[in-house]
Amino acid sequence: MMVLITYDVNTTSEAGKRRLRLVAKQCRNFGQRVQNSVFECLVDAAQMKQLKHRLVGLIDPERDSLRFYYLGNEWRNRVEHVGTKASIDLEGPLIA
Amino acid sequence: MMVLITYDVNTTSEAGKRRLRLVAKQCRNFGQRVQNSVFECLVDAAQMKQLKHRLVGLIDPERDSLRFYYLGNEWRNRVEHVGTKASIDLEGPLIA
Repeated sequence: MMVLITYDVNTTSEAGKRRLRLVAKQCRNFGQRVQNSVFECLVDAAQMKQLKHRLVGLIDPERDSLRFYYLGNEWRNRVEHVGTKASIDLEGPLIA
Repeated sequence: MMVLITYDVNTTSEAGKRRLRLVAKQCRNFGQRVQNSVFECLVDAAQMKQLKHRLVGLIDPERDSLRFYYLGNEWRNRVEHVGTKASIDLEGPLIA
């Protein structure tokens, strides 16, 4: 299934900048960045549970915000992109 | 239907900062901000067409990025929030 992860991390402190780096790093492990704080992650239920657990553990719930949008399997019909850096098709052919 | 709009606008120039303000303003007309550059818009097809037309006309496709995620009508089951500023339930009771 495709899960869209969007986040806002408060980076007014050094700790916040570190949280931001770690959140992005975790998301990169499971998917691809399509915008600054927006990741598309093609994961199964177990992977999603693991990713969510890590992300929730990383953020400061008083200052940061995480949103998960479960787009399901037929996600391609749900997404449109306009402008720069269109996302790479995760399931598409790998261009050698 | 619920449409999630996420955007990245290049704000390294004054023109970019202006584009960012205008994009946010348009999105505010049709929905609510749930994160810095993430809006949830409860719209019908005609409103979505209008909003998309305006946003596409506002951004610089060479520098900026717009993504539309069509979450459909059963969108509440697709969204999870952790942390600050949970979104207001657009269709929920207005709290006087």
